[in-house]
Amino acid sequence: MVDAGDPEPRPLVWTGTSLRLLDQTALPETLVHLEVDDPDELVAAIRRLAVRGAPALGVAGAFGVVLALRNAERDGWAPGRLDAALRRLRAARPTALALAAGVDAAARRIPDGLPAVLAVAERLAAEDEAANRAIGRHGADGVLARTTRRPLRVLTHCNTGSLATAGWGTALGVIRELHARGAVEVVHVDETRPLLQGSRLTAWELARAGIDCRIQADGAAAGAILRGLVDVALVGADRIAANGDVANKVGTVGIALACAYADIPFVVAASRSTIDPDTPSGTDIPIEERDGAEVLTLAGHPIAPPGVRGFNPAFDVTPAHLVSLLVTEDGARPGGPLPTVT
Amino acid sequence: MVDAGDPEPRPLVWTGTSLRLLDQTALPETLVHLEVDDPDELVAAIRRLAVRGAPALGVAGAFGVVLALRNAERDGWAPGRLDAALRRLRAARPTALALAAGVDAAARRIPDGLPAVLAVAERLAAEDEAANRAIGRHGADGVLARTTRRPLRVLTHCNTGSLATAGWGTALGVIRELHARGAVEVVHVDETRPLLQGSRLTAWELARAGIDCRIQADGAAAGAILRGLVDVALVGADRIAANGDVANKVGTVGIALACAYADIPFVVAASRSTIDPDTPSGTDIPIEERDGAEVLTLAGHPIAPPGVRGFNPAFDVTPAHLVSLLVTEDGARPGGPLPTVT
Repeated sequence: MVDAGDPEPRPLVWTGTSLRLLDQTALPETLVHLEVDDPDELVAAIRRLAVRGAPALGVAGAFGVVLALRNAERDGWAPGRLDAALRRLRAARPTALALAAGVDAAARRIPDGLPAVLAVAERLAAEDEAANRAIGRHGADGVLARTTRRPLRVLTHCNTGSLATAGWGTALGVIRELHARGAVEVVHVDETRPLLQGSRLTAWELARAGIDCRIQADGAAAGAILRGLVDVALVGADRIAANGDVANKVGTVGIALACAYADIPFVVAASRSTIDPDTPSGTDIPIEERDGAEVLTLAGHPIAPPGVRGFNPAFDVTPAHLVSLLVTEDGARPGGPLPTVT
Repeated sequence: MVDAGDPEPRPLVWTGTSLRLLDQTALPETLVHLEVDDPDELVAAIRRLAVRGAPALGVAGAFGVVLALRNAERDGWAPGRLDAALRRLRAARPTALALAAGVDAAARRIPDGLPAVLAVAERLAAEDEAANRAIGRHGADGVLARTTRRPLRVLTHCNTGSLATAGWGTALGVIRELHARGAVEVVHVDETRPLLQGSRLTAWELARAGIDCRIQADGAAAGAILRGLVDVALVGADRIAANGDVANKVGTVGIALACAYADIPFVVAASRSTIDPDTPSGTDIPIEERDGAEVLTLAGHPIAPPGVRGFNPAFDVTPAHLVSLLVTEDGARPGGPLPTVT
């Protein structure tokens, strides 16, 4: 469970009867928890990003199946209602492969009963944290082998930390591990508009972990890289196609292009489950387009003239050849076509 | 003078006794004018970006000399006070060459008296608008020659419109001209964090001119370009070095890298006065670093955890070879080393 002093806040915890979410839309100003008792409440929470981050969504999806099956049994749902609820849950965010994978993994055990489904969800959470620790070690080894400056000036985008996972973090887990090895000078944190996961969440996690950081506008990333102020960029992934193309938070591909131009490593850290052998390339990845209002207002304050529309894709796709290093719990290797994972 | 119905709002007007500024920090919510009577009031207005944009700053700088000389004569300033005031004005923003150039052009006529100085300022304003009309024509010709899709999907960054100039605009002047020729489908407007000149000012100008636009997060630019949603990018410049490197609003170089990758034209439109033969290359251009608080708050609302620092460079530098087309009032040509302008 999360408390204000926990250096690694957890985004979700199973209480035994409900799923307790840390409402990430309220951070960094307030720590608010949501008690979710129903799969459609979870869908709503996922859609408004109260819980987000590919690995956390995978675990949340599995617990959503727990809630759905528990309620179906308790309330005697009509035939078909359970399946429909799982379909809505699976589709709550279309780009993140982990969400659908988490739902599917848990749903496969429905014939074995609620305790079996709950065991899947709890196993996914435990495995995710263990995977992230391994990602951190492999990633730190890979980054240190490909850079010479010590300590490092790291750039990251969006939030890939404890809040985005079941614990520790993916790209931010690599940063935590590098910090533990004394190898981090400063982290340039892209604020990550429109929803500011960088300034609200990543900077908050880094500050709690005692890692020095500076928040910058997303537009400052390429210039900072070209000016030689950054030694390595570390980002996560929401889905990786079979050819190695990487879908991640909008803004990522611009960082990759700048790293290629400046010849510094562009490193993607993600769990193995993010790799989708059924998606041939990046052009096959569905890109979620969110409500344009997210770019037309901030904190309830209008920042655009009335009547003007917004364009608000949540993700972009980085071509595989721009990925210097892809880190999973299985190790680190250059970007490019991936062996099929089963 | 600006009024709510003017399709081309002017950022500054000489009233005969004072400089009337349209306070661009209050847009798009309210039209507020500032009456500036003193050069140091103008310095403060420039620093907080009540008036901004390289060409507008050039004209404002010249009128600042008018105010300084008028007050020096009227109030009997002590020796040295006038020179000190002009130095503060000249240095109010270090990256924009036009500001210093405007101050210098007007100051050279001080020995000829106040009417001569005022004539310089008024001539600079008139010349800037005429130059922008020529930039619009040359730029539209160049863009139409280098693109095939009709109508065009244009991307722009920051504000280069009437508000940034003495009238019409530079890059936005090219967009106005393309629109007048029926060649614009939509303009993707980067919101341009941290101060949102894109969403607050450019979208406002485009809406008033009846040009369809969509506001997007700055991070969405590269992805939109790589997805094939954009046919040409048009930006302005704050200073162009002798080797053709371009300093412009932070976020610009990421757009240039994406255009190069996607093989679409990256077009810089700026007045001839932006070219600095005394600055050999982009690394010699001073990059203004603004208060980090601009990225830690929005509209007075904190968006970052307490105690975390911001990194807030106002500009970045685009290498000359990434510029497909450099448009000035003298014509359009590919980026690269420039003939010295005298």
